[in-house]
Amino acid sequence: MSEQASEAGRALAWRDGAFHPDERRLAGECAVAITYGRATHAVMLATPADLEDFAVGFSLSEQVIGTPGEIESIAVVPLEQGVEVRIDLVPERAELYVGRRRMMAGPAGCGLCGAESLETVMRAVTRVEAGLSLAPEEVLAAMASLDRAQRLNAETHGVHGAGFWVKERGLVAAREDVGRHNALDKLIGALARGGIGAEAGIIVMTSRVSLELVQKAAWAGAPILAAMSAPSALAVRVAEEAGLTLVAVARRDGFEVFSHPGRILGAERARLR
Amino acid sequence: MSEQASEAGRALAWRDGAFHPDERRLAGECAVAITYGRATHAVMLATPADLEDFAVGFSLSEQVIGTPGEIESIAVVPLEQGVEVRIDLVPERAELYVGRRRMMAGPAGCGLCGAESLETVMRAVTRVEAGLSLAPEEVLAAMASLDRAQRLNAETHGVHGAGFWVKERGLVAAREDVGRHNALDKLIGALARGGIGAEAGIIVMTSRVSLELVQKAAWAGAPILAAMSAPSALAVRVAEEAGLTLVAVARRDGFEVFSHPGRILGAERARLR
Repeated sequence: MSEQASEAGRALAWRDGAFHPDERRLAGECAVAITYGRATHAVMLATPADLEDFAVGFSLSEQVIGTPGEIESIAVVPLEQGVEVRIDLVPERAELYVGRRRMMAGPAGCGLCGAESLETVMRAVTRVEAGLSLAPEEVLAAMASLDRAQRLNAETHGVHGAGFWVKERGLVAAREDVGRHNALDKLIGALARGGIGAEAGIIVMTSRVSLELVQKAAWAGAPILAAMSAPSALAVRVAEEAGLTLVAVARRDGFEVFSHPGRILGAERARLR
Repeated sequence: MSEQASEAGRALAWRDGAFHPDERRLAGECAVAITYGRATHAVMLATPADLEDFAVGFSLSEQVIGTPGEIESIAVVPLEQGVEVRIDLVPERAELYVGRRRMMAGPAGCGLCGAESLETVMRAVTRVEAGLSLAPEEVLAAMASLDRAQRLNAETHGVHGAGFWVKERGLVAAREDVGRHNALDKLIGALARGGIGAEAGIIVMTSRVSLELVQKAAWAGAPILAAMSAPSALAVRVAEEAGLTLVAVARRDGFEVFSHPGRILGAERARLR
């Protein structure tokens, strides 16, 4: 099993009526098993880079831990079919986790009825309270800074990016992955490991905005989430409910605010609905 | 809970130095619980359209059924937190499914060790044998036909599309969803329900190519998978192993062949590696 962030690939390119051999870098993707105390919690397909950040961010997003300090150790173990990210929790947390596992209402093959399993996915969102305020030009600057930081995407054109931008500091972290949810979990993990509170800045992403990105950003406490592409109707509804400022369709020349415009200067007096 | 394929949304658009009210259609997304005999198999976030196709395609991809005839009934049931797609299998299959559930090594919270759970995701791929052969111009025509068929994306700019194109018939089916895996499952379900064998044509998609798309396409028996964006290194490796012709970075003016070029006229003598 290969665990590289990118790999050399070969292709036959059809252009101008003929085939030409071509070489291009391909984004790394591999199956990643997250285990706590050696028992698998989830398997995801992810880009094998920054897996320690992923371990911390995923554990926070899944509410297995409350702070990075509740992780005793993380080992990234290459196996034949993928990578095991082997997490050991501090004894107290490990005990809680074993208790939770017994009760666990995981949606996959859980045998719960439909209504119960839907509730596990549509869990109540945290209310974001942070009072950050940004000028429209700062939102654009944050998006542009992510664009420049995407090294793996510049190489492969095949990964999503998530970055964190702070006023007067600029982009303080950026992470990439074939999956947009993973990119955000890696970013959240990097911030937590660096002791950087998500309430101090704006999360910027290259992707569309689905429910889960809003859930993760709100849970991390980020006041503003800005993304390059369109949000789903559900993402907007949940951002509204969470008190999160959702900016999307963010391009070089403009963007749109879909919820809680009060944190964007000049938009705070405009009414959304 | 709303179950529309798209919804009206409002935004404040920042353009040319000022905020303007804007209206835009947003892609529908909701939690969908797939149940067999009332017990949840999986919960996914999906666009609530063509859910019967999704039920059949997902059941095929998950290998719960071998043919659509093994489903006795499908009911789409709106609930407070999302939609239950309530599937009843024919008695023989239902019995097999209950047996499988007992053995089920689902990766989420399954308690398996890392190596075992990685194996469930990296299952051996089916070998594709179909001997279809297309001219490069036909590949481009297939991609262009999908572009024209994406009604929901034209409205929302927020969904992926999957289509099936057959020589001398053109695009015979297209399905859309916020998730690219769901779009492909819906397409596979639509083909199976229509009695259209996947070995007769090319699957075209608007997305990047991850492992799971290759696994699903190969399992459905499609000889060629073509997508608009780049593949991951793992997707190429598994397509190679499965005998699938993987075409990606497919745009108006050209495309690249990453595996088994033998099915594309003019590329069959060129060597990839």
